[in-house]
Amino acid sequence: MNIPEVFWIVPIASVVALGMALFFFSAMMREEEGTKRMIEIATHVRKGAMAYLKQQYKVVGIVFVVLAIVFAFMAYVLKVQNPWVPFAFLTGGLFSGLSGFFGMKTATYASARTANAARKGLDAGLRVAFRSGAVMGLVVVGLGLLDIALWFLVLSAVYGDQDMSLITITTTMLTFGMGASTQALFARVGGGIYTKAADVGADLVGKVEANIPEDDPRNPATIADNVGDNVGDVAGMGADLYESYCGSILSTAALGATAFALNADMQLRAVIAPMVIAAVGIFLSLIGVFMVRTKEGASMRDLLRSLGLGTNVSAVLIGVASFAILYFLKMENWLGLSFSVVTGLAAGVIIGQATEYYTSQTYRPTHGIAKASETGSATVIIKGIGTGMISTCIPVLTISVAIMLSYLCANGFDMSMNASSISHGLYGIGIAAVGMLSTLGITLATDAYGPIADNAGGNAEMSELGPEVRQRTDALDALGNTTAATGKGFAIGSAALTALALLASYVEEIKIAMIRMVDGGRQFVDAAGNVFDPSKATMPDFMQFFQVTLMNPKVLVGAFIGAMAAFLFCGLTMGAVGRAAQSMVEEVRRQFREIKGILEGKATPDYGRCVEISTRSAQREMIVPSLLAIVIPIVTGLVLGVAGVLGLLVGGLAAGFTLAVFMANAGGAWDNAKKHVEEGNFGGKGSDCHRATIVGDTVGDPFKDTSGPSLNILIKLMSMVSIVMAGLTVAFL
Amino acid sequence: MNIPEVFWIVPIASVVALGMALFFFSAMMREEEGTKRMIEIATHVRKGAMAYLKQQYKVVGIVFVVLAIVFAFMAYVLKVQNPWVPFAFLTGGLFSGLSGFFGMKTATYASARTANAARKGLDAGLRVAFRSGAVMGLVVVGLGLLDIALWFLVLSAVYGDQDMSLITITTTMLTFGMGASTQALFARVGGGIYTKAADVGADLVGKVEANIPEDDPRNPATIADNVGDNVGDVAGMGADLYESYCGSILSTAALGATAFALNADMQLRAVIAPMVIAAVGIFLSLIGVFMVRTKEGASMRDLLRSLGLGTNVSAVLIGVASFAILYFLKMENWLGLSFSVVTGLAAGVIIGQATEYYTSQTYRPTHGIAKASETGSATVIIKGIGTGMISTCIPVLTISVAIMLSYLCANGFDMSMNASSISHGLYGIGIAAVGMLSTLGITLATDAYGPIADNAGGNAEMSELGPEVRQRTDALDALGNTTAATGKGFAIGSAALTALALLASYVEEIKIAMIRMVDGGRQFVDAAGNVFDPSKATMPDFMQFFQVTLMNPKVLVGAFIGAMAAFLFCGLTMGAVGRAAQSMVEEVRRQFREIKGILEGKATPDYGRCVEISTRSAQREMIVPSLLAIVIPIVTGLVLGVAGVLGLLVGGLAAGFTLAVFMANAGGAWDNAKKHVEEGNFGGKGSDCHRATIVGDTVGDPFKDTSGPSLNILIKLMSMVSIVMAGLTVAFL
Repeated sequence: MNIPEVFWIVPIASVVALGMALFFFSAMMREEEGTKRMIEIATHVRKGAMAYLKQQYKVVGIVFVVLAIVFAFMAYVLKVQNPWVPFAFLTGGLFSGLSGFFGMKTATYASARTANAARKGLDAGLRVAFRSGAVMGLVVVGLGLLDIALWFLVLSAVYGDQDMSLITITTTMLTFGMGASTQALFARVGGGIYTKAADVGADLVGKVEANIPEDDPRNPATIADNVGDNVGDVAGMGADLYESYCGSILSTAALGATAFALNADMQLRAVIAPMVIAAVGIFLSLIGVFMVRTKEGASMRDLLRSLGLGTNVSAVLIGVASFAILYFLKMENWLGLSFSVVTGLAAGVIIGQATEYYTSQTYRPTHGIAKASETGSATVIIKGIGTGMISTCIPVLTISVAIMLSYLCANGFDMSMNASSISHGLYGIGIAAVGMLSTLGITLATDAYGPIADNAGGNAEMSELGPEVRQRTDALDALGNTTAATGKGFAIGSAALTALALLASYVEEIKIAMIRMVDGGRQFVDAAGNVFDPSKATMPDFMQFFQVTLMNPKVLVGAFIGAMAAFLFCGLTMGAVGRAAQSMVEEVRRQFREIKGILEGKATPDYGRCVEISTRSAQREMIVPSLLAIVIPIVTGLVLGVAGVLGLLVGGLAAGFTLAVFMANAGGAWDNAKKHVEEGNFGGKGSDCHRATIVGDTVGDPFKDTSGPSLNILIKLMSMVSIVMAGLTVAFL
Repeated sequence: MNIPEVFWIVPIASVVALGMALFFFSAMMREEEGTKRMIEIATHVRKGAMAYLKQQYKVVGIVFVVLAIVFAFMAYVLKVQNPWVPFAFLTGGLFSGLSGFFGMKTATYASARTANAARKGLDAGLRVAFRSGAVMGLVVVGLGLLDIALWFLVLSAVYGDQDMSLITITTTMLTFGMGASTQALFARVGGGIYTKAADVGADLVGKVEANIPEDDPRNPATIADNVGDNVGDVAGMGADLYESYCGSILSTAALGATAFALNADMQLRAVIAPMVIAAVGIFLSLIGVFMVRTKEGASMRDLLRSLGLGTNVSAVLIGVASFAILYFLKMENWLGLSFSVVTGLAAGVIIGQATEYYTSQTYRPTHGIAKASETGSATVIIKGIGTGMISTCIPVLTISVAIMLSYLCANGFDMSMNASSISHGLYGIGIAAVGMLSTLGITLATDAYGPIADNAGGNAEMSELGPEVRQRTDALDALGNTTAATGKGFAIGSAALTALALLASYVEEIKIAMIRMVDGGRQFVDAAGNVFDPSKATMPDFMQFFQVTLMNPKVLVGAFIGAMAAFLFCGLTMGAVGRAAQSMVEEVRRQFREIKGILEGKATPDYGRCVEISTRSAQREMIVPSLLAIVIPIVTGLVLGVAGVLGLLVGGLAAGFTLAVFMANAGGAWDNAKKHVEEGNFGGKGSDCHRATIVGDTVGDPFKDTSGPSLNILIKLMSMVSIVMAGLTVAFL
């Protein structure tokens, strides 16, 4: 196989991304960390975060060893899987874990430095925080592309000259996404439980009972709360998007290998195209990163504009560049495919905007929730849930239009649903996902920026820095809240498109598994009694063979179970946060009671104990929901077969996406409704209305930071598990 | 066509049901209504309820006239619909409206009489309340079967000797379900908004601000609250189940006409079978009704057992009877079909039990929510939402197993998915739904009993009857809360199976519409360019022709929109309750402020004004969500065609069912967690924990009584609209 020269931009871009990450990291490390008190607090947080990560990687390590053994058994004993799968799986997990580790390390070093830089000015603070966030963004895309490039080179060397080499290569690579998914699940779920147990616990006792402000050093849970921002919002978010990033590129490559199977040369370019778009996206993200700056005394609007400028310039540039890339790759229908990329990009922007509208302090929805506080906390909750549910409308319609358009642009507006039109259309949906994620380097930077700014604010508060510094860190923090909400919209949008591409790849994986079994002597017979040859079968043939129509009760039952899985998963994670928060509350109450002088500021609380409680709760509570996400698709596959799994994935995707948007937006809206009251509306801080909105905010915490975001992983992981277990499902046919 | 003699049991059963309803009604009316004060209060409530109904029927009347004109246009001008459709539609709405009217009239006469009977003893009170509830149950099944029998006779006379007569007859009759659905939608949504606006408003000001107990005559919203129980829980619930009842029988008849099309004699019996099962179910329900009685000083457990005995005896009897019915009807595979009926019955019982477990005061889930009140209202909400989401697991798995089993029993465990196995299997799913609903006469009696007992309690409180009477009415009321939760589980379970049967009928309706158009000269060409003859096509052929596979982006987009529709609909109804409750709160506050002496009991509040506000809000707020439920499937059909509609219905069903169970159970659990605290746990009445659980209860009100139950209708109505609009969808192909 002759890998075209343009492919080398992929490893080059990944090295550049990692190099720039190192550059930003060193630059950040050269900044002063501030006063002794600031350093002390930052060290507490850093140690807590690292201790958590260490503990988490231990648990995840065990899961990985077990799963790798299972995959090895399937590959070498049952021979229902490609022999490379166990290794691909492990590297996926390893690289994802590394991204989380580096990102969090950077974030925990950056927070005190951001607070310290904010003593000089707003721009200095923004720059330190944002570029530290960029480390996370660049590490994720760098490691992601590195893993992809390495595996592509290795597998090309092994399989390059066989029949169907590219299909084998891409479907094998896809399974490393399983490693990334598994690691991401634990990072998201564990991190999400940790952060909200600490946050809810700290708020319930601190703000509500003891009446002390947020991030007050007298609150024993305050360090755990700051640790939580790092493990949940940095490490968790990073692992989530690492998974979407790799998943979208890999599944698009696999779909490309099928769609263009008749022309070997075109096929190779179709496989490489998503990688090249992603690689170019890295360079364009870097341009955006350098554009983010602000001036002293900037308003919220200015700050938002400066971040928005960076992201939007990158997005527009990659939109334009994709036309050039696909043209120079001489892709069939390059123009249509470019429009598919643009569709994905546009969908990302629209979902982000809609999220901002429904959750930002500046618009009507949050004001309505704040107004509902006049009749108490119950109406705040009712209004917030109503608003969150209504807010699903635009994202769902946007994704729907994006699906239709990217499909139709890619196959020349052919709705005939023959084998060729389907496979080209599905490739278009994949490439739209790649488009949406191509600027991840900068969009993830704006996400990771949030918790850094939040921690900087916490550090400034606890170190009792002057009011003008607090004002600056507050401004940076408020900006972070909006970018976090937008980032969540983007994460779920990209998860939906990626999951859809994975859904299509699942059928490819089933095909490969069946071919392997036919080679091993097994024969498949269809309902009419004819022998079914998987190597010659097209997508519609498989749909027919497995009877994947909506009148098949297995499909219907699968869809029911998929929808239920999303709710069950959310219910379990909500319950986990509730229990973990309750033990945190009890610990804080105990410290207030037993350690005399805490509330007068005369005694130091036992921060470490709270960190430990959060860590332990998170580790214990993440097991059941995580295993569920792995077990449900396996059992469905064994009981209901391929038709049931496809029903499961579609039901889970449709319900899970909508549920995730609802939860993320309701949570964000409650948060900012509270801030709206704190700004002096409806009685301002300390009023009855304020207390009512605090209840909303507390309920919203697990909505927006635990259950909602974990759903992204659930819908992707269920597809990934199905893909990796395809061999097993087929063996049981 | 020779209608077999056994058919006559259908009109006979319906007349018997109506006769017994009249008998119970007269018996109830002969009871004393009590003191002057009791009569006065009951009159207030009755007038308020009737005023609401009158207003509602006006609005619904306009909608019906408009829709009937549209259908007439489609039938007579466009000629894409059967000419009987406009009339069938109108009778469906009329009969459903009549059921609501009679049921509510009975309930509002019965409440004071129940309170008065409770002065004599518990058994007397139970008997009056329960038999009055039975009036509702019997009117619904009686009018339902009457409408079905009449139309069957009329259409048999018209079409009896044509080709495909039974398919034409049954698919035409199906459209009268559209009338029932439309009426049910407004009844459920309008009633749901009314009742919760009044309830939430009364609680927020009364219990929370003014610190006066529930049903206190000093609270101006208290009459509106009692009216609400009648319009929401009696009229709304009745219309909902009227629709499920007719829908399941009619769609099963239509599926039977297709499944057994090759044998005219068997076909006729397959069409009649669901009607006969339902008719026999009426007689067996009556046996159950007469078995419900209790003794003085009965505990909650005794009361539950006496109600349970009635329902369970009816269920077991109809289970046994269905074997006999299907055997004597000489149905092909009568044994398998009987097991399908039993599957439906068992699923209803299991879902009811699971609902009871998750919502009743006696079990762990509600205790956990009550315990969460120790850390405030936020954790009560978090815990309740978590519990509600987890509680979706058993109902979804139950329905899934019921779908698979009823399908497989009915077609002899044939998963080959050829035309015959599919159509027989789908008939099995339909007959399972009929089985579940066959004892509706008594299950609906236990539902309607709830609000009657609730109102009796309110009447006793406002009339200041003695403590031992209050204790009896409280016991009757508490029993009503549990039966209400179980009834909701049953309503949503039956809605899911009915919607599934309607889904299959939709394809039949498309077939009929296409045949009509082919007769009119139109030609259909498939993707490969061949002429498609709908009259010869089987279910799998249609799936192929419309490309209803999960790889069709139209299906995927449809599923997304379906899931979103469920959330959007809930969001809108939640918002409606919030707004309506807010205006109620303002009115009550105004009266407390402006009418001096209310709180001292010296001045009478202006009850009428509160009733008026609830009525006006409900009427205004029900329009948008209701129209949405009608518009979404029409637009989806026009834009995405048959594949999109099927995706929409499956996505809406899977997500809507799960969401409905979540909302109903979370709401029920919050309600009973509060009651658990009121019984003296966690500090009892008046404690901080009690206040925290009141917030949960208030949030739960629209969950369990507005949004959750309205989803039942949404998922059925979207199918019904698709069925009625099938002609239009096909015309736009």
